[in-house]
Amino acid sequence: MELTDNEYSALGLYAKVFADLTPEREALIAAEGKRLEPYLVEITDKFYGTLQKIPNALPYIEGRVEHLKKTHVNWLQRVVTGRYDVSYVAQMYTVGCVHVQVDLPAEFMAGGTTLIANELYRLVPQVYGNDAKTCVAMIQALNASLGFSLIIMQASYQASITEVKDKFLAITGMSQKLFEKLAAAYDGKH
Amino acid sequence: MELTDNEYSALGLYAKVFADLTPEREALIAAEGKRLEPYLVEITDKFYGTLQKIPNALPYIEGRVEHLKKTHVNWLQRVVTGRYDVSYVAQMYTVGCVHVQVDLPAEFMAGGTTLIANELYRLVPQVYGNDAKTCVAMIQALNASLGFSLIIMQASYQASITEVKDKFLAITGMSQKLFEKLAAAYDGKH
Repeated sequence: MELTDNEYSALGLYAKVFADLTPEREALIAAEGKRLEPYLVEITDKFYGTLQKIPNALPYIEGRVEHLKKTHVNWLQRVVTGRYDVSYVAQMYTVGCVHVQVDLPAEFMAGGTTLIANELYRLVPQVYGNDAKTCVAMIQALNASLGFSLIIMQASYQASITEVKDKFLAITGMSQKLFEKLAAAYDGKH
Repeated sequence: MELTDNEYSALGLYAKVFADLTPEREALIAAEGKRLEPYLVEITDKFYGTLQKIPNALPYIEGRVEHLKKTHVNWLQRVVTGRYDVSYVAQMYTVGCVHVQVDLPAEFMAGGTTLIANELYRLVPQVYGNDAKTCVAMIQALNASLGFSLIIMQASYQASITEVKDKFLAITGMSQKLFEKLAAAYDGKH
């Protein structure tokens, strides 16, 4: 599933508002984020270490961890260095589609983002010093960058799910209304 | 859609691992989180102010903002004071189901969490002082608490979507395999 450049651009603007990814935060990431780059391999190793402790996650990573780690480091590099342009929106949208194709449960993306955020936040005082306000500004920018990425992945997830539903209706020739009636009748019997 | 207490308990454990909500972080929230309580109304007002600037969000909140704000403050109170027990898991699961029933796009929950996180993080130095390590520990605990809640809401979202798909198959008498074949043929023609 692909969108046009105009659609990616609109999705990017929508996700920026929803993630509070302001121009000031984008500028802060662009100026200071690269200082986190030396830690991205370590963060990724720890992330996949945690995933390997979650039984539900195993089928999605078994035998592919080394490959996935490389993709993951590349993605994190983008998260911490900025350039949240149309090509990045398109890339995140495709990642969402791929996740639907492999039947990855929706909550995995939220869980992954939470784990990555906590690892990045842990490093912030070490990299940016012990002034709380400086650290919090950096953390807010990272939260906005990760949230922006998650929103786009999940928007694509949502679109893929709607597509499945639309296909069902198209194949069976059912209207949405008829499906709802039949579903209600089905609920009554089960 | 409801789960048994055992299922809620299992879901809670799964979400805690995925959000890195450790016993230490739970204890930190339980001990220190209540100092954020005086700000929850202000955070909620700002949150709904931002949602009102997002055209896609308007249909879900119009005419209901005052009611939603009350529910939201109550939820935030739980986020910042802890007790992430079975009753909280059940509550978050129900919130996910309600969101599916009103056709809320999946990314709204991720977007909402990102906005709330940034507001809470902003307050942390003001409430907990200017030591970066203390602030980051609090932020990590809040990130884990919010991530935990988001994972449960999205797991419920995922289950509701699977349920719709299963109902389609049950109503039409199609097998999953037949649907996939027809969907592929449909793709070929469109």
